[in-house]
Amino acid sequence: MQITAQARGVYVIAPTPFTADGALDLASIDRLVAFYDESGVAGATVLGQLGEAAKLEHAEALQVASRFIQRARTPIIVGVTAPGFAAMRALARDAMDAGAAGVMIAPPNTLRTDDQIVAYYAQAAAAVGADVPFVIQDYPLTFSVVMTSSVIRRIVNDNPSCVMLKHEDWPGLEKISALREWQRKGEMRPISILCGNGGLFLDFEIERGADGAMTGYCFPDVLVELVRLAQQGQRERAHDLFDAHLPLLRYEQQPGVGLAVRKYVLMRRGLLASDAQRKPASAMSARAREEVDYLLARLARVDARARLDA
Amino acid sequence: MQITAQARGVYVIAPTPFTADGALDLASIDRLVAFYDESGVAGATVLGQLGEAAKLEHAEALQVASRFIQRARTPIIVGVTAPGFAAMRALARDAMDAGAAGVMIAPPNTLRTDDQIVAYYAQAAAAVGADVPFVIQDYPLTFSVVMTSSVIRRIVNDNPSCVMLKHEDWPGLEKISALREWQRKGEMRPISILCGNGGLFLDFEIERGADGAMTGYCFPDVLVELVRLAQQGQRERAHDLFDAHLPLLRYEQQPGVGLAVRKYVLMRRGLLASDAQRKPASAMSARAREEVDYLLARLARVDARARLDA
Amino acid sequence: MQITAQARGVYVIAPTPFTADGALDLASIDRLVAFYDESGVAGATVLGQLGEAAKLEHAEALQVASRFIQRARTPIIVGVTAPGFAAMRALARDAMDAGAAGVMIAPPNTLRTDDQIVAYYAQAAAAVGADVPFVIQDYPLTFSVVMTSSVIRRIVNDNPSCVMLKHEDWPGLEKISALREWQRKGEMRPISILCGNGGLFLDFEIERGADGAMTGYCFPDVLVELVRLAQQGQRERAHDLFDAHLPLLRYEQQPGVGLAVRKYVLMRRGLLASDAQRKPASAMSARAREEVDYLLARLARVDARARLDA
Amino acid sequence: MQITAQARGVYVIAPTPFTADGALDLASIDRLVAFYDESGVAGATVLGQLGEAAKLEHAEALQVASRFIQRARTPIIVGVTAPGFAAMRALARDAMDAGAAGVMIAPPNTLRTDDQIVAYYAQAAAAVGADVPFVIQDYPLTFSVVMTSSVIRRIVNDNPSCVMLKHEDWPGLEKISALREWQRKGEMRPISILCGNGGLFLDFEIERGADGAMTGYCFPDVLVELVRLAQQGQRERAHDLFDAHLPLLRYEQQPGVGLAVRKYVLMRRGLLASDAQRKPASAMSARAREEVDYLLARLARVDARARLDA
Repeated sequence: MQITAQARGVYVIAPTPFTADGALDLASIDRLVAFYDESGVAGATVLGQLGEAAKLEHAEALQVASRFIQRARTPIIVGVTAPGFAAMRALARDAMDAGAAGVMIAPPNTLRTDDQIVAYYAQAAAAVGADVPFVIQDYPLTFSVVMTSSVIRRIVNDNPSCVMLKHEDWPGLEKISALREWQRKGEMRPISILCGNGGLFLDFEIERGADGAMTGYCFPDVLVELVRLAQQGQRERAHDLFDAHLPLLRYEQQPGVGLAVRKYVLMRRGLLASDAQRKPASAMSARAREEVDYLLARLARVDARARLDA
Repeated sequence: MQITAQARGVYVIAPTPFTADGALDLASIDRLVAFYDESGVAGATVLGQLGEAAKLEHAEALQVASRFIQRARTPIIVGVTAPGFAAMRALARDAMDAGAAGVMIAPPNTLRTDDQIVAYYAQAAAAVGADVPFVIQDYPLTFSVVMTSSVIRRIVNDNPSCVMLKHEDWPGLEKISALREWQRKGEMRPISILCGNGGLFLDFEIERGADGAMTGYCFPDVLVELVRLAQQGQRERAHDLFDAHLPLLRYEQQPGVGLAVRKYVLMRRGLLASDAQRKPASAMSARAREEVDYLLARLARVDARARLDA
Repeated sequence: MQITAQARGVYVIAPTPFTADGALDLASIDRLVAFYDESGVAGATVLGQLGEAAKLEHAEALQVASRFIQRARTPIIVGVTAPGFAAMRALARDAMDAGAAGVMIAPPNTLRTDDQIVAYYAQAAAAVGADVPFVIQDYPLTFSVVMTSSVIRRIVNDNPSCVMLKHEDWPGLEKISALREWQRKGEMRPISILCGNGGLFLDFEIERGADGAMTGYCFPDVLVELVRLAQQGQRERAHDLFDAHLPLLRYEQQPGVGLAVRKYVLMRRGLLASDAQRKPASAMSARAREEVDYLLARLARVDARARLDA
Repeated sequence: MQITAQARGVYVIAPTPFTADGALDLASIDRLVAFYDESGVAGATVLGQLGEAAKLEHAEALQVASRFIQRARTPIIVGVTAPGFAAMRALARDAMDAGAAGVMIAPPNTLRTDDQIVAYYAQAAAAVGADVPFVIQDYPLTFSVVMTSSVIRRIVNDNPSCVMLKHEDWPGLEKISALREWQRKGEMRPISILCGNGGLFLDFEIERGADGAMTGYCFPDVLVELVRLAQQGQRERAHDLFDAHLPLLRYEQQPGVGLAVRKYVLMRRGLLASDAQRKPASAMSARAREEVDYLLARLARVDARARLDA
């Protein structure tokens, strides 16, 4: 079961659960997976930026990926971003052997020119193997690499194994429109476009032609409903749902501290046993926790999913 | 009338109005100023990042600043950020001579270490003159300069003429709390903290101790009401108002294209004769305009200020 | 007298002389110009990165440029790099009116993608006027903008008024070879390539096809001789001369402190009345001065031009 | 045998030898080690920036380190820079178990503020273990992290296991003087300072108080002699030797292509069987090879070590 250019829906970015003392918490993985499946996600992506991948040794990373793969009924994409192609190849090989559906690759933040970016993805595609479907992660805010629409088109057209774009440029709406226009004209091979950036523009991204979301907002069940409503053309209902969640979603989408917020809410939702991160960790102050609780309480008035036990 | 460390409320970031052919549009300045005064803003900041300052020759910049100063009943802060201290000094001197209430200074994006940032502000303070009140602009997303809370404290304590922080770090809530805590303990001279970053966290920023907002959201009248509600402790009403505007505010707070959105709405509100920018300009696509219109229409259901003639 | 794509030889980067109290030192400009002419330079570039341009108000900048223009028998290029096109246009217009031979434009360090760089130069060329010959400054070490050879070719082919490249990429030898190859094949309009980067690779750059140097090494008379020897094919003599100066040239080519070294040696050579810089200035320690004196003394054994009175 | 704050002399940065088809070339490692020992180096550093560490899987990296350790009579430092502390810890633990003398840690290029840098090294020191001596790598040109002298002092004073600075700031001479002055005054614990940056300022760095060199110039035997001469106070002879090698040393010290030059000369010296790099590799053009051959031929006139068979 490998990802293809036809992928649609929500691929949730999964956190890596730890116990309070920093050990891997496999039981929470199982709970997360069960919840994802029940929520109707199309798949999940593990060991991404927010999966604390850099805090895992190779064997641990593989253990996390394998657990998700074994438990889930949906495809699992594994983040294999690495400073060198050797580590990338090793993780991709082992993850695919374990049953991953594809890999996600973010660019190193030293790339600058168009040609450097295109060459990097060609080398990465070769490193992971031409038969391994991969996802471009286009997140300039975090990676400081600016990919024009033309660069993405070059990568897609040059590499048959590129099947998906994790779209999280900001602003990014016109990029979706440009890529889809090129597809229509036959100038770019069709790919799946799933949107990240915390979901901050997901309301309009689906309308612009994105196939779904790939982000880790602490209510993936809401993302699933939102994408479905938007794809069904129920514009008002989609925006109503989006707007209700926007205050919390915006709070979660803060660089650095966002992961702490996400794990905290997932813990309050009963999905994670602990909101612990491995060190070095971003932390929430008591004040920040109170703010998140307040946002949840306000949200609970209009969305029952936010009614959590205190 | 100079700004002081006691400044509170909303200092609106004013755009520079142009006619369709790129000429200065002084009549629109007058209309903006009248609207600002009527809305209850505490002041305005001109020639900032979004004031297209870099597209104005010195004489034009001075003409814009002077017009705002002459027409407004409130203090006008003038952005004097420049690549060299000579240009900064020249504009600061001329702006203060014209009646400005103070100047705003952003750091050049080449600064890296704490000491470099502190030294830069000492030199800038000397360049504009020790008697000229100045505002630190702390906007790492745009300027790529990361100021810790300690660095801000050093700048404040070293420079008596530093009276205000335009706070737009992201995340930035804990920074407000840290600075206010130092003030309470007497470790930092009190200053005014006004929040920017498009207002994206203004709901909680006031609660954390900020004195108000300094941003250019296309509904400055709403910002005034919001700050007042929050400062009066009417938490629910403040958040209700904020949440209603968040979808549009979030759309406006996109790097680059944000100014086009802002000018477009201000034009639709009848305040600008044209939404023209001087070149090089970010542009809105027809699709983006439709999206903004849709957000305005949704907003109009709950806030009459958004009921605009099509 | 305007610069053309046929320009050859040494265009010296001129410092801006100040008196000890920071005033413009016009007498030293006259002395520098007389020395440049006597040394056989083909021209000079003023108000560049090392001309402390950012420390001059517009009127002063114009005064410096005009003085060089009036006194020199050779073309004077004026640096007009600015954060906005308005200031760039104003200085370019005034400099050309004063008799400048062309302008030099460096890219703002916020440019990332190929298209951004190409668009910037198109806008800059329009801003200064299509009839004003301009020089691209390609100095990634300082400006953090990486221009591939292809990007330079696009700028050259798109803009007829682009006549020269100040080449200071590092490494940069292959770039010269690539550009010259495109010229030979008719794929790029011929331009003048003058090399900067302190002259650190000037020995090989001329051999690769560069037309000369544009740098501010404190022995411009040596640069003139070196370029002539290399262009005459006297390879051994050119390298002998280069190698003799390399220890000092390398010392001068230090970011930041380099200008202090340069002004110090020019003062010791009797060309500047003072080595003062306007604030903020990089300074030489006593130890650094001793090191430069030592390098000069060693150099003096093989090159009489370095025999300076202590 | 662990490195200490008293380390002196030359720690050569060792390349990782590959055969033409990309396999590890252990025989060349043995030849390199024998040559290093014979040359009188004090130690070697493997798996650094130029050791192509990112192209090695964990097991290979360990194999390379182990081979150097087993064969050398001197201490071997192992580069353990990694994007996450898990990978850093794993490699450090395995390398120390294999007999490494210490580890070298470069900062991730996302660090900006003083506090971030200090915190990073505290976390890294904890990750590798408080008993493992470590080296700070201060190379802003490559890592884009600017450490002031004060930041280095904080790291040294906070972490007893920090015993050495790989100094390669540019300019960097005043930093050596500042650190040594603090040592003299008792404000900073003494550490070993070994200089990198290709050796471009090694002539003066030893005079300023550095303990030696840590760089990979293709004539490590010359570095040994140079450091000895300088430490013996034979200033003229040290500078004569340095100046003779400067043209080649400067050519080698080009970002990116430098490794190709280095491996090419080491191959020509009979130390490497091949100058192959693993992909992605920087390559030398035929023209560049001719230039290096020319520099070697010129050097051979004054230094017999450069007389190589063509």
